[in-house]
Amino acid sequence: MADAPHVVIIGAGFGGLYAARTIARKRVRITVVDRKNHHVFQPLLYQVATAKLSPADIASPIRSILGKYRNVHVLLDEATHFDLANRKVTLKTGEALAYDYLIVAAGASHAYFGHEEWSSLAPGLKSLEDAVEIRRRVLLAFEEAEREALLEGKRPMLNFVVVGGGPTGVELAGSIAEIAQKVMAKDFRGIDPTRARVVLLEAGQRILPAYPEDLSRSAERQLRHLGVDVLVGRAVTGVQPGKVLVGEEVMASSVTLWAAGVKASPLGNILGAPTDRNGRVKVEPDLTLPGHPEVFVIGDLAAITDKSGKQAPGVAPAAIQQGKSAGKNIWRAIKGDARQPFEYLDKGNLATIGRAAGVAEFGRLHLSGVIAWIFWLTVHIFFLIGFRNRVLVFIQWAWAYFTFESGARLITGKTDLPEEEARG
Amino acid sequence: MADAPHVVIIGAGFGGLYAARTIARKRVRITVVDRKNHHVFQPLLYQVATAKLSPADIASPIRSILGKYRNVHVLLDEATHFDLANRKVTLKTGEALAYDYLIVAAGASHAYFGHEEWSSLAPGLKSLEDAVEIRRRVLLAFEEAEREALLEGKRPMLNFVVVGGGPTGVELAGSIAEIAQKVMAKDFRGIDPTRARVVLLEAGQRILPAYPEDLSRSAERQLRHLGVDVLVGRAVTGVQPGKVLVGEEVMASSVTLWAAGVKASPLGNILGAPTDRNGRVKVEPDLTLPGHPEVFVIGDLAAITDKSGKQAPGVAPAAIQQGKSAGKNIWRAIKGDARQPFEYLDKGNLATIGRAAGVAEFGRLHLSGVIAWIFWLTVHIFFLIGFRNRVLVFIQWAWAYFTFESGARLITGKTDLPEEEARG
Repeated sequence: MADAPHVVIIGAGFGGLYAARTIARKRVRITVVDRKNHHVFQPLLYQVATAKLSPADIASPIRSILGKYRNVHVLLDEATHFDLANRKVTLKTGEALAYDYLIVAAGASHAYFGHEEWSSLAPGLKSLEDAVEIRRRVLLAFEEAEREALLEGKRPMLNFVVVGGGPTGVELAGSIAEIAQKVMAKDFRGIDPTRARVVLLEAGQRILPAYPEDLSRSAERQLRHLGVDVLVGRAVTGVQPGKVLVGEEVMASSVTLWAAGVKASPLGNILGAPTDRNGRVKVEPDLTLPGHPEVFVIGDLAAITDKSGKQAPGVAPAAIQQGKSAGKNIWRAIKGDARQPFEYLDKGNLATIGRAAGVAEFGRLHLSGVIAWIFWLTVHIFFLIGFRNRVLVFIQWAWAYFTFESGARLITGKTDLPEEEARG
Repeated sequence: MADAPHVVIIGAGFGGLYAARTIARKRVRITVVDRKNHHVFQPLLYQVATAKLSPADIASPIRSILGKYRNVHVLLDEATHFDLANRKVTLKTGEALAYDYLIVAAGASHAYFGHEEWSSLAPGLKSLEDAVEIRRRVLLAFEEAEREALLEGKRPMLNFVVVGGGPTGVELAGSIAEIAQKVMAKDFRGIDPTRARVVLLEAGQRILPAYPEDLSRSAERQLRHLGVDVLVGRAVTGVQPGKVLVGEEVMASSVTLWAAGVKASPLGNILGAPTDRNGRVKVEPDLTLPGHPEVFVIGDLAAITDKSGKQAPGVAPAAIQQGKSAGKNIWRAIKGDARQPFEYLDKGNLATIGRAAGVAEFGRLHLSGVIAWIFWLTVHIFFLIGFRNRVLVFIQWAWAYFTFESGARLITGKTDLPEEEARG
């Protein structure tokens, strides 16, 4: 096996993991490199951020997921440079890893459109650490309001502003409104959490712009039903401590969350290939780097328009399909077979709005409300999980989800009490 | 109810929570202040530190635990000063809280015997954050060894040194040896985790010095059976990055953990009463501060020898008994009844060593091995939990515990890769 071709995969998101699984049974050696020790089930990150599930519910060590494949090695490390001519990846720890085939699946992070200084005031949601930080801020806002009410006799405002009306923004806003109404309401004495205001700001003319118009309208109705203020055509012009600026308007905000933009991993530029304006690498039809048929770029880091003219979106199903395609093409290349171009099969779009509502699009079929939510649940359980025991994971999730498992509402890390100004 | 006596409880550990529960049904107002939003089931902290259970499994928001009592308020804050003459507690946020009765149950933290500089090199285990940090270091040590083995062709050493042979040290050492043998062994390719060395250092002549001698010997045998090197009569004289000094001897250490000493919360000194050498407040027989019958000090912060000459140890059952005693005496005082002195009922001592071993002492009854472990499990389930649904919690624990739930093995926070020295 030592002379088998060596496939190096950078990133263990959906794309990287499915690529590894696709060729793991073949005669190859595989090394998966990730800077975290765990894979995160990203579609459920917003539920950790809103204290409905715990980190352990949606993350699994990469070693556990790939443990059954004896030819797969996992390294906790980070790619920093590529020597494409000599087929080597330099890692952060200083070592170089030689490859025969390389798959770069390093994903994306939030973009603040040139206002990176907003990032600490309005965190985005991409990693488990992000989710725990958002959870901390949301829960602390309730605690701080309770403290002001009980000790200072105030009637504190409690405003949550979510910037960006895409699926993540919609899910965050709906979920915060729901915990305020249904969970927090029971826990507090000095404040009335049901009076918390949740605002969803969208710069464009409708939320969920990638969805058909009727579903955007339906999502907006369902959000309003949960008490969310949906404001469209409102571009954020500034983020400051405790406030969000929208043109001339100053909006008070206890917690500001960012779901307005995504940019690809800097590894795209480090590869030296042409990228689009979001930093995604413009790949060949078989997902390879121009001039380098041994280097594949997949997932959120790849910009590809397939022959039907469809641009693959930055969602888990697209990354999974690309991972499988790259894996298969590598095996075809090793065997000397002809490669096949990647074709994106659009399985539809799904977003949830709280616990039993949502919107779903499957081609011409548009669903809303509980039915969309049930579809969402089914799809997540049967099509996305894959690498853990589905039934067991489902039972765990269902348990945590329907009982509002209280262990999810932990504030860990800094408690950040506003200290007395001077104690002279 | 607004004119009912106001009982302020500082700290929501076992002592504070049981005090609150004891008088919560009476005609009083209660305010519980804690600097965390959650209560931690401390006896199982070592299982989070060794990646067997997740934080959410052993912690619960204080608001959820006390939610059913309408006369209990919970504040996320921290006591910083006491104005005993005017019956006021100053909080970190600057507000003062007036009380009729005060219970100080602020617990204890690690002590490094004048070597506080060791704390970052050898963390101790008192909070959920401590446990997550220890878990991070333990898991990262395996990752780093794997990286060196795969990329640099080394045969890296993997040494875990636990300082202190009390129950926490014994449980940590046994549990690390167990995960190395049974869990990690399946996950790694480049290293053989079963060859990891776990050392337990005890300065005294035997481990578990508070237990009868036969149980100390049994614990040592059981630890050796798991592969732990138990070294007694070895006082640590220095802790440095990657090593522990024991007299003239230099012991290599990938991860050093501190379980050698405890000191009471600084609130003991801030109260201005006499304290013992561990900073514990010397209280009256009814657990009150000398000269202040309205101020109770309980749990790990209290030094009390009851009339039978028994000193209450710093364990959960003692804190629970003291919380109940303080609660009852407050109600007696309100009614004008005579107070009763606190009497410690020793329910025995229990420590586990890995998954199905341990030692237990119930008066003359000394148990070892599986039987001790089953006792431990029973006691923890039926006597200590109390505030959550026992059956459900048990099912969750059992599930996580017996399946070695992989979600517990997450490295969160900094990944701390050793960066390349210079990139010229």
